[in-house]
Amino acid sequence: MSHFQAAYYEGRQTIRIGECTPVPPEPSEVQVEVSYCGICGTDLHIFHGAMDHRVHIPQVLGHEMSGTIAALGSAVEGFAPGDRVTVRPLAPCGDCPACRAGHSHICHNLKFIGIDTPGALQSLWTVPAHTLHRLPVSLSLAHGALIEPIAVACHDVRLGGVTKGEYVVILGGGPIGLLVGLVAQSRGARVVVSEVNPFRVRLAREFGLDAINPLEVDLGQKVMDETGTAGADVVFEVSGSIAGAEMVTKLPRTRGRIVVVAIFSQPAKLDLFRFFWRELQLRGARVYEPEDFETAIALAASGTLPLDRIVTTVQPLEALSDAMHQLEQGGHVMKILVRCSEN
Amino acid sequence: MSHFQAAYYEGRQTIRIGECTPVPPEPSEVQVEVSYCGICGTDLHIFHGAMDHRVHIPQVLGHEMSGTIAALGSAVEGFAPGDRVTVRPLAPCGDCPACRAGHSHICHNLKFIGIDTPGALQSLWTVPAHTLHRLPVSLSLAHGALIEPIAVACHDVRLGGVTKGEYVVILGGGPIGLLVGLVAQSRGARVVVSEVNPFRVRLAREFGLDAINPLEVDLGQKVMDETGTAGADVVFEVSGSIAGAEMVTKLPRTRGRIVVVAIFSQPAKLDLFRFFWRELQLRGARVYEPEDFETAIALAASGTLPLDRIVTTVQPLEALSDAMHQLEQGGHVMKILVRCSEN
Repeated sequence: MSHFQAAYYEGRQTIRIGECTPVPPEPSEVQVEVSYCGICGTDLHIFHGAMDHRVHIPQVLGHEMSGTIAALGSAVEGFAPGDRVTVRPLAPCGDCPACRAGHSHICHNLKFIGIDTPGALQSLWTVPAHTLHRLPVSLSLAHGALIEPIAVACHDVRLGGVTKGEYVVILGGGPIGLLVGLVAQSRGARVVVSEVNPFRVRLAREFGLDAINPLEVDLGQKVMDETGTAGADVVFEVSGSIAGAEMVTKLPRTRGRIVVVAIFSQPAKLDLFRFFWRELQLRGARVYEPEDFETAIALAASGTLPLDRIVTTVQPLEALSDAMHQLEQGGHVMKILVRCSEN
Repeated sequence: MSHFQAAYYEGRQTIRIGECTPVPPEPSEVQVEVSYCGICGTDLHIFHGAMDHRVHIPQVLGHEMSGTIAALGSAVEGFAPGDRVTVRPLAPCGDCPACRAGHSHICHNLKFIGIDTPGALQSLWTVPAHTLHRLPVSLSLAHGALIEPIAVACHDVRLGGVTKGEYVVILGGGPIGLLVGLVAQSRGARVVVSEVNPFRVRLAREFGLDAINPLEVDLGQKVMDETGTAGADVVFEVSGSIAGAEMVTKLPRTRGRIVVVAIFSQPAKLDLFRFFWRELQLRGARVYEPEDFETAIALAASGTLPLDRIVTTVQPLEALSDAMHQLEQGGHVMKILVRCSEN
């Protein structure tokens, strides 16, 4: 077996480690030697067989990555072999109403690279050059693999319009919830994270965020007490739970904002009277735009985020199945990075 | 009996016409001789006994009015007896978090004049001077009684951010729904009203609005066809129905806006996945701010709205019970005005 490996999802709970088949870049593509790739909730969802209708088995997963450019297509400008990069894994059609309106990040025909096309859990990965963002030398390649989820958080916080001094509540303290909290905190917000998992609560507190278990603390009362009965400026729903959908309308102040970050698999009951009564605002936030990647890179490179603490372990590609099982058990795990090549 | 009369709500389905007891104005109040008062959905709701916990029996209802100033408190400036006015029927506390944040129109302790305090269905009505808006001579007093619901529509359309050329859908074609349609149309929007009552559908069409019965026409398909599959720019939910709550997420374009105007008495199931997927935006809109009254007065005075067609009948105060019954039967009725004095 060459040292170029790939992890292939072959159906429910089944991952095979095999040889990577390098794909020579087309004129507008680049080939990247992948250093690290994080595993996200969607990857776990695919591993559970829940998205077999969408992936193409054998499917290489992975889209939270860092690496160095190995080869360039003939038409690619501004990059050179050896450049350290991360990839914004979106391939929009360019021609649908969303693309034409300037919202190509949520193109009607969006291909998500690593789900709809091969992903980064392999040594050599070929992607369109328009997806590249350069990583500064001050950022390690391990931390570079966290840019994609940080960019999600930057997008969420930007669409939530969080400003200095605002009171922000985050329902759900997984990797995205905590990153939303950290990004909001970096903007000068006072952040409360609501999370039932004690490990995640402790981690949030280590990060300087206020964190409570809503089964132990009356979150609504806490927010009212701490805001002089006004309510929260912004609430991020990152739990995807029925309890979260019930809570989002109870917490905001008059004209407060709610951002739906989580993926709700079923319609949820929402208190529309409260939207009317308090003129609440709600918006959905999905993936990221180029500026969110740039913001995420600058923030990560600033050294102010506890990125080492977000990475629970770094494991070799061969251990991907084990990593998936660790994630599904939850408990004491946050982000797992997978080493995809020797560089 | 003097010619100063009042209509007293005395409990479920019971209205008594009696003498009006004029209240001398305090220093910061004015006494208005009420010309016309419209009946709104909330008045009907009260008539049905549904708000007996909130009103103070015997309660004078009514808050959509026009009139002339009869007497002024000693501290009132800028108005004179005989001035033609309408009233913005909101009495905020001035001290709650909403008031302090500049949202006094939805004050946490808001008193709605005509519900929480005596209303306009009487010949002489005493109100705080800060509620007054002057009516221009070009606007008849009958049309002046429509300013309050037009201001609701102006507020809804303003919060919906409707701009020229946008495609707007209105779910529910009652008085507020049609007024939202007319105000949006006045801003240059293309408006579709969805309404099951054939009388209301015909009236909307007379007003130059597109209107369909969603039981006969596939509204979702129509919107997709007419927007090149993009979807609507703005959807106003004015029906308060389960069907409406289901429909609101199906119609908007990527990053489209939904405005909740209706009062939902129960939480409704909402497709939060669609909010995420298309980055939809939703906000509640309640009553109005002073600028909405000014916009409504200017628009009404411009003569471009079919105000005569919105008024189904003008009836004497003695016929208020009959008017309530007409409204509850629906069918061929839009707005009923009640004549409250001889001026």
